[in-house]
Amino acid sequence: MHVRVGVLGAAGRMGRTVCAAVAADPDLELVAAVDTAGAGEEVEGVPVSGDRQALADGGAEVAVDFTHPSAVMDNVRWVVGHGLHAVVGTTGITPEDLEEIRGLLDEHGGRSNVFVAPNFAIGAVLMMHFAEQAARFLPAVEIIELHHDGKADAPSGTAMSTARRVAAARPSPYRGPDAETLAGSRGGDHEGVRVHSVRLPGLVAHQEVILGGPGQTLSIRHDSLDRASFMPGVLLAVKAVGERPGLTVGLEHLLGLGS
Amino acid sequence: MHVRVGVLGAAGRMGRTVCAAVAADPDLELVAAVDTAGAGEEVEGVPVSGDRQALADGGAEVAVDFTHPSAVMDNVRWVVGHGLHAVVGTTGITPEDLEEIRGLLDEHGGRSNVFVAPNFAIGAVLMMHFAEQAARFLPAVEIIELHHDGKADAPSGTAMSTARRVAAARPSPYRGPDAETLAGSRGGDHEGVRVHSVRLPGLVAHQEVILGGPGQTLSIRHDSLDRASFMPGVLLAVKAVGERPGLTVGLEHLLGLGS
Amino acid sequence: MHVRVGVLGAAGRMGRTVCAAVAADPDLELVAAVDTAGAGEEVEGVPVSGDRQALADGGAEVAVDFTHPSAVMDNVRWVVGHGLHAVVGTTGITPEDLEEIRGLLDEHGGRSNVFVAPNFAIGAVLMMHFAEQAARFLPAVEIIELHHDGKADAPSGTAMSTARRVAAARPSPYRGPDAETLAGSRGGDHEGVRVHSVRLPGLVAHQEVILGGPGQTLSIRHDSLDRASFMPGVLLAVKAVGERPGLTVGLEHLLGLGS
Amino acid sequence: MHVRVGVLGAAGRMGRTVCAAVAADPDLELVAAVDTAGAGEEVEGVPVSGDRQALADGGAEVAVDFTHPSAVMDNVRWVVGHGLHAVVGTTGITPEDLEEIRGLLDEHGGRSNVFVAPNFAIGAVLMMHFAEQAARFLPAVEIIELHHDGKADAPSGTAMSTARRVAAARPSPYRGPDAETLAGSRGGDHEGVRVHSVRLPGLVAHQEVILGGPGQTLSIRHDSLDRASFMPGVLLAVKAVGERPGLTVGLEHLLGLGS
Repeated sequence: MHVRVGVLGAAGRMGRTVCAAVAADPDLELVAAVDTAGAGEEVEGVPVSGDRQALADGGAEVAVDFTHPSAVMDNVRWVVGHGLHAVVGTTGITPEDLEEIRGLLDEHGGRSNVFVAPNFAIGAVLMMHFAEQAARFLPAVEIIELHHDGKADAPSGTAMSTARRVAAARPSPYRGPDAETLAGSRGGDHEGVRVHSVRLPGLVAHQEVILGGPGQTLSIRHDSLDRASFMPGVLLAVKAVGERPGLTVGLEHLLGLGS
Repeated sequence: MHVRVGVLGAAGRMGRTVCAAVAADPDLELVAAVDTAGAGEEVEGVPVSGDRQALADGGAEVAVDFTHPSAVMDNVRWVVGHGLHAVVGTTGITPEDLEEIRGLLDEHGGRSNVFVAPNFAIGAVLMMHFAEQAARFLPAVEIIELHHDGKADAPSGTAMSTARRVAAARPSPYRGPDAETLAGSRGGDHEGVRVHSVRLPGLVAHQEVILGGPGQTLSIRHDSLDRASFMPGVLLAVKAVGERPGLTVGLEHLLGLGS
Repeated sequence: MHVRVGVLGAAGRMGRTVCAAVAADPDLELVAAVDTAGAGEEVEGVPVSGDRQALADGGAEVAVDFTHPSAVMDNVRWVVGHGLHAVVGTTGITPEDLEEIRGLLDEHGGRSNVFVAPNFAIGAVLMMHFAEQAARFLPAVEIIELHHDGKADAPSGTAMSTARRVAAARPSPYRGPDAETLAGSRGGDHEGVRVHSVRLPGLVAHQEVILGGPGQTLSIRHDSLDRASFMPGVLLAVKAVGERPGLTVGLEHLLGLGS
Repeated sequence: MHVRVGVLGAAGRMGRTVCAAVAADPDLELVAAVDTAGAGEEVEGVPVSGDRQALADGGAEVAVDFTHPSAVMDNVRWVVGHGLHAVVGTTGITPEDLEEIRGLLDEHGGRSNVFVAPNFAIGAVLMMHFAEQAARFLPAVEIIELHHDGKADAPSGTAMSTARRVAAARPSPYRGPDAETLAGSRGGDHEGVRVHSVRLPGLVAHQEVILGGPGQTLSIRHDSLDRASFMPGVLLAVKAVGERPGLTVGLEHLLGLGS
């Protein structure tokens, strides 16, 4: 396998990490680095261009997008319009965006495939998948997510997504006791699943899903330290996107985990 | 040492456990078992009486009260009025109650001493003490308490007490980010300390205090499995109360932990 | 569904718990209680018999065995010889025993089915299954199991079984550093997987599987509090064994978890 | 307060972090940077010198040593010989080394003070202190330390030190069950305390001390993410060493924690 890869958002923190991971993989070649900021710099020996045309000029087969919620859909339209495959790691993709992407792919006659994942950390994807499987047998579930004090929003997107998947998978709801003498102490309720968000310096990005049944609990915890944790998932997607027709959403589909 | 002990609430679950622990301790003797329910039964070979007079008749030096918030103060008045020492484990003692107890002890001329503890589990007392000490150096603190789904109130009294002690000990406040896209996810705020309450079957009684600083976190966790965890603390108090003039509140004062 | 159930080892601690769970399930009927000790007693209203013939006399369709490693195979021979299905929870079943059971089932022409599980706690079974799945992507794995100080052997059977499954599932081995300045500190090595056994009062039965990759760890933990945690798995097996021809080993096969 | 500080090992990873922390503290001034490697470079605007004489030339009052076990004692001799105070963070200081330092300080007539700490992370120091205090009441203790897979030795120095302090503090020994069917699974035994060392990619530096008693456990855990966690302790020592005559060993003495 040899795949020619371009990166959109190449001068950002995540983009640089992706460029380095692509450059270090013997099956991949970094052929274009695009960023509206940072033009003129080099990343992994590739000059950063402010113009997406560098993807086509470099002969990229796959474009990886780690840009910004406000830029990503315009990038996807361009990439699909030019017959490249896209791997999208930028956050903020909505269900309406996914619908639009499906339409684009149809319109362009199946030349391009698109892979979108809200989370590229294999450990986080496994955590969510396992939580969903376990909730079928242990429907009483609560989620604790813990992040550094610089994270402005709560809960994390991963926690919200986990809650939705648990809610959809379990055969019966679980609420647990509701009464609070201190408002908020029982956490937030998302589709019937309680979510608790801890914010402290010294933390990075962590989530624990606790499932309880008579006489036992099962806890599934993911601890993420740095952006390096996303790279195995990004590389897996870059290598797989060419073989998966249409739109694929979620790294779990590349892991062969079964139902 | 040989101490003659009577138990108020002797036919309840906690009372029976206390009676058994007293009976098994070579330094202690169970001489009276009082309970308004259960009269006529025996506990550890001692007949249960519905009348507190059994304490005096049995020659009890120390009365241990594990009854009910509605009964405990009347019991304390009787015990102090009869010149016995009291060890009180019943919940619901208010600051006003403590004030009244101090008055009672003065009034009766120092014959009796009273020991009150909101929590007799040595591990829990150590957890609170350590959290307080550590908060002097790591003022960013959040509390997660986890209990079985039969616990009706949230947060636990131990969590609230820990929050107050942390707030009083640390040199500067810590709030962490406030913004919530899901109401309640950041937990309850008690004196500036966030408290998160998890309720699931399979849990018993657990609390984790997490303190964060640049590049590190310190976590102090207590897991309590059953009432057996309270007995070492109760026995310590029964043996110590005769030597501590007046009113003592909190097991930590019997542990010699320093400031 | 209505299944007539007999219990071997009915007067033991686990046996009594099984009898109570069977009696409480509307789809099941407890028709025989067998134990070499305890004959003459009643369990859940059923007289305890010292003779296995009580299973046949009571019309049991399924016999549940929670006896002793020295007794279990003789019981299985009897049960299969009499055309009943068996659910075996007794520990100590060897690969040779499983081979013999397969032979017995063939010999008796498919009238009986046998279900054997080393662990009936659904949470523990899920933990092992998830550890096996995750090790395909995160092959660096160590196991910590923690039990009460009355557990004489180390490691637990569950830890050994988890280690074997992880070793078989992962694409490449992981050893981690070997050097020890204190002998034993790096734990035991079972098929290339490090196992650490903690023994302390206050613990019950716990296991944590930690999987590490660049920048992240995934931890899967099961906490078991009491025998109640086994009952959902036992009842599931009792209901399923009649529909699963031959020998089935492991609760995971009844959970529909996929590969 | 204004303290003039020189750093030995200034071009190493820890040394650079110390230089940056000193430079950023308004009460401290970085006046010399010494390293046998890196001479000619600048660290925080201070030229790196290969010669310790730069400490005297720069007018340093305190020398901080983060060099190498093979170099540190020679540095301490030089520093004390030149009448400066020393803060030593280099590992590998033996009891014999401490004895020699005491002798040096006497010999030079009390002009210099030396502060040595095996661990400058305040959270780790608190963990050890709390473990020692708690072991007085809960003498059953085991230690789990978890580090990245690049750490060559096991157990960590912090774990060994914690074990010694627990062993000295508790009123009675605890061994727990000894029998192993897999050699090493019960961990290493240091002065009667079991130590378990986990090594996995994705971990950084973590330690959990678990104390057990009837019906309860108390767990004290420190998670260290990066060298930033050591800086508050280093700066505290730099500011305090001038006021503490003679040799001081251990950050806990600067924290005012009581017995």
